This record gives sequence, structure tokens and C-alpha cells, in this order.
Amino acid sequence: MTDFQAILDGNRLALSRLLTQVENDSPESRAALVELFPHTGKAHLIGVTGSPGTGKSSLVNQLALHYRKLENKRVAVVAVDPSSPFTGGAVLGDRVRMRDLAGDPGVFIRSMATRGSLGGLAQSTANVVRVFDAAGYDIVIIETVGAGQSEVDIARLAHTTLVVEAPGLGDDIQAIKAGILEIADILVVNKADRPGVEMTEKALKSMLELAHPVQRRFKHHGTYMDVPVYETQPQTQVWIPLIQRTISTDGAGIPELVQSIGRHVAYLTQSGDWTLRERTRLEVELDGLIREELVARFRRNVPVEQYESVLEKIVQRKMSPGEAVKLLMDGRFK
Amino acid sequence: MTDFQAILDGNRLALSRLLTQVENDSPESRAALVELFPHTGKAHLIGVTGSPGTGKSSLVNQLALHYRKLENKRVAVVAVDPSSPFTGGAVLGDRVRMRDLAGDPGVFIRSMATRGSLGGLAQSTANVVRVFDAAGYDIVIIETVGAGQSEVDIARLAHTTLVVEAPGLGDDIQAIKAGILEIADILVVNKADRPGVEMTEKALKSMLELAHPVQRRFKHHGTYMDVPVYETQPQTQVWIPLIQRTISTDGAGIPELVQSIGRHVAYLTQSGDWTLRERTRLEVELDGLIREELVARFRRNVPVEQYESVLEKIVQRKMSPGEAVKLLMDGRFK
Repeated sequence: MTDFQAILDGNRLALSRLLTQVENDSPESRAALVELFPHTGKAHLIGVTGSPGTGKSSLVNQLALHYRKLENKRVAVVAVDPSSPFTGGAVLGDRVRMRDLAGDPGVFIRSMATRGSLGGLAQSTANVVRVFDAAGYDIVIIETVGAGQSEVDIARLAHTTLVVEAPGLGDDIQAIKAGILEIADILVVNKADRPGVEMTEKALKSMLELAHPVQRRFKHHGTYMDVPVYETQPQTQVWIPLIQRTISTDGAGIPELVQSIGRHVAYLTQSGDWTLRERTRLEVELDGLIREELVARFRRNVPVEQYESVLEKIVQRKMSPGEAVKLLMDGRFK
Repeated sequence: MTDFQAILDGNRLALSRLLTQVENDSPESRAALVELFPHTGKAHLIGVTGSPGTGKSSLVNQLALHYRKLENKRVAVVAVDPSSPFTGGAVLGDRVRMRDLAGDPGVFIRSMATRGSLGGLAQSTANVVRVFDAAGYDIVIIETVGAGQSEVDIARLAHTTLVVEAPGLGDDIQAIKAGILEIADILVVNKADRPGVEMTEKALKSMLELAHPVQRRFKHHGTYMDVPVYETQPQTQVWIPLIQRTISTDGAGIPELVQSIGRHVAYLTQSGDWTLRERTRLEVELDGLIREELVARFRRNVPVEQYESVLEKIVQRKMSPGEAVKLLMDGRFK
């Protein structure tokens, strides 16, 4: 039994316990999420993504410090590390952060690592974010390593997405990250005291010009079930991604970055995009849960022996996968 | 109506037509895939993945030339480009290749670009590969840009996976690709005439040592439905990924690479891994098709108005996503 009132009151121990349950997707946590849901929708969700080596974690640290100390906001950081066990970056990152932020009741840092599929990680990150939202954190920063589709999925959670770059990471990095650029609301050139900062900024500018902002926004909000919400939305205003220099080791550029984030919030509110992003996010989540539940029901309803025998026929090329699906599904969904 | 016999006989025009239908997922192509399925399972599928700048495409070109001219094999190349519209790499690649291989009836090159979701691309790539297999191509090379989960999915199609590196791409590239390394059967250090080749090779070796080969193999074969096939499989033999230097511009190292690929085929056959990979591949495909069909049936059965009204309640925080799923699914799957 979860003590909802304790969480709504900001009790850290109760919060910490619930977060663990949510990560483990326990039945208690599912019930708790239902109870907490009406209290969500107030936090500003900021996604921060970027390759290893961009100084992303210390940037997040600086952002959290700024919001906490200069704007008196309550800040939660969710650090998501979908990479392989090689790096172990998340744990180390926490320790470094602790020095600056430990003991402050208005700051909560949580690391999450991949356990099952990346899809599962996106869902449990969404739930963890929701708990922080209900618990009254004003800002929730979601930090991910920029490495592909998973980041795009997780970025969809955020109202404002920061993509972090740094000088001297090579041309190939740029090419890989073309897809990641498309989700950026603000491009941060961190480590701006390093040589090559002008070149990096120039490269980003020319990529932005290529990206055709209007089309970009449509793609950003594209959802799985293809509900044509945009047709009814007038596209009166377009957000052109800002480029911002920072040096996260000494905090230079952080006040300007916070100001840009504020401008983005103002844009989101005025254009109606805030509501649109909320809706899209909830729709993507609903679709994911529907898929999960459909598969769970399928597994409960199709005997393992039948599934195995059909698979065996496919392996022996006696039945095609398409035929097998028809056979397995026959009459099971009305 | 597809002319199956023409395809089995190796008619290029009929083949080309069917490939287009398969890419468009037309009803005719679905029927054709059922008909062709019993004729598949003979080709050796070789996956080649690597970042832009590694010279991957010309390496594939050289491999195809070698198999064709020195071993008299029929070779198909499927070049998959899941990147954003910025690069346009696939089309350019084809043109360069044409000079060497055009007009040879024993070679067929096909480029595929992302149209819908990456999941859809993996499925249509699987189908295109299957058509080449049925049409009697001995070797099917599947080439992808190494940029994340999609490559892992597509690599699952292959019996043998080559990961291509090149000197001078920087440390950060290495970090990003930790996950990609785990799928490599052979690591190719291309552009081996460039400075820094020893360092790249050394970095790869130390990463391989970190990767714990036994654990790696278990992960490699892990499937979605969690059927514990491994428990019954004795793990008598382990493949340690080979590292191979090549210079694709002049073909140096290609005969040695082909030899290593041959050793991998021998290993797969002797260890039983060939059968295991086939089975895993077909199982992953079956699971994907089941998911797709479940969602399609759900969409047909749940009125759009009901879905929209439930989503609206979620947006207004009057119903949680979890509750919404229960409501939408109620009684619909027996």
C-alpha cells in the first residue's frame, strides 16, 4: 500500500520507495500511478540528449543548480542510460553530482538503466517522470545518451528538448546525429572554450537550414496511430531551434540557456504547442500500453505448445510466417 | 499475379517487379511470399554495418565482385539506409557500384530507404532478402548504416555480421558503437593504409576482451517471446570475433576476409548455430507479424470515436492511461 499523501507532501523516503516499485513495474506501482495521475501535468519536462564526451551530465548538473538556487524551483533529474554495460556512466555521474546537490530536499536525482527492451525503458521513464510531476517537482530533466531511436522516443516525453554538442567530435558524429538534430528545440554547444567552437556552430547552422523547420515540426509530432490532429491546427508560428554556447565546468552560458528555455516555454504556451505535445505524448503512451496489453493477452491465450509447433513448421519451411499468424490468431480477437 | 516460375528461374524483370511490390507491401506480394517461402533457407546472409566514413559501401562492392568473379556465386546486395533525408547515401552508392557490376546477370543490387517506421523497414528488408533467397542467390549481403537499434534488428537477419571500422574516427565513435560491437562476428578495419590503424585495432581488441564472448552469444540470440531455447543447447563452442584489415579502394585483404567468412560458416554449421540463428530469426519475424496483426485488428474493432473520447479523458487527467487500456480492451480478446 503506497502512502499517496506522503508523496504529494514531498516525503523523500516514500517517493524513493515508489520509484523503485515503478521501475520494477509492480502491481502496487500500477495502482499508485492511477491514483497520482490526476495530480500530474504541471511540471516542465526538459529532455537533454547528446553523445558521450559532450559534457552533457555536468551541463544537467549546472542547470539543476541554477533552477534550484536562483529560481527556487524544485528539480528532479532522471538520467537514462540505454547503453551496454561497458560504460557504467550513470552511476559515476550520480557520484559527481552528489557533491553539489546532496542534502538539498528540493533536488532529486534518479538513474535508470536498461533492463528489458528499450520500449520498456521509455515506458518506465514516463512513469518515473509522472511520479516526480505528481510529487510537485517544477522541473523534471530527462537526460539520455544520444544514440538512436530510443532517444527520439524518450525525447517525446519532454516539452523542451536540448541536444548537446561539443567541438572536436569529428564530422562523422555530425552525420550520425542528423536524426537527433531534428528533435532539438535548443542546440547547446558545450565546452565552448575549446578550439573549433565556431566550426561546430557553423556546421549546426547549416544543418538547421537543411532541416526545413515547418516540416520538422510535423515530423516531431507524428504519432503512431496516425490521427490527423494537425489538419485542424493552424500553423501560425514556427520555432526555429536556438544555438547556445555553454561551458559546463564553470557555468558560463547557463543563465542565457535558462533564458532560452524560458523563451521556448513562452512559445509553447502561446502557440498551443504545449497542449499539443501533452496530447501527443499521452497518445504515444496509450498506444504503447495497448500494444503491450494485446501481446500479453495473446500470450495468455495461445498455448505455448501451439506456438512452438507452428514455429517448428516455419523452421521446416512447411508454413510461411504470414500463414502462421493467421492460424494463431484465428477467431481470437473479435 | 506474380509469375513464380519466372522468379525461381532467375528472370530479372519479374524479380525487379516483385521487389517493388514487396517494398510496397502489396496484397500480391504477400501471396507471392507465401508461395516462395518453401524455396528459401538456402542463401548465406551476410550483414555489413558501420558508420558513414568507414568505406563500407565500397567494401561491399569488393566482396560482391570477389564472390562473383572468383567463386562464381550469384550475389544480391540489399543496401538499407535508415537515416534521415539529409544524406541520400544509398542512391549515390548504387551509381558508383554500377560501373563495376552493371550488366552481370549474377549480381543484383537493391537500395531500400525508410518509408514508415524502422520496424516496418526491418520487416520489408526481411521480405526482400527472402525473395533473393528463393530466386537462387547464393550470397545476400545486407548493408546498413550503423546507428542504433535498427542495425541490431537488421543484423539479426544475417548468418554472419561484419562491423566495419576505420582509423581516425575518434574515441567517441567507439563509445557509441559499444552496442554494435556486440553483434559483430568479424570486425573489419577498412582503410588500413591510413595512419592510426594499429591504434584502432588495439582499441577493438580491448573492447572485445571486455565483451565476455560467452555472455555475448546469449544476448545475441535473445528473443522477444523469451522461449528458453538455450537451456537445451549445449554451449560447447564459442566464436571469438575475428579482426580483419582491408583496403577497399584496391581490394587488399578481401581474399582473407572472404576466408574468415568461410571459417564463420564452418563454425555455424558445426556448432548448430546456423540452425539456431535461422530459428531465432524466424521467431523474431513471427513475433513482429503477430504484433502488427494484433494492432491492425484492434484498430478495426475499436471505433475511432471511442478511442478519441478516451484519449480526451486522459488529456483532461480524468482517466489514467492504464485505466483507458482496460476500458478499450474490455472483452475484445478472448
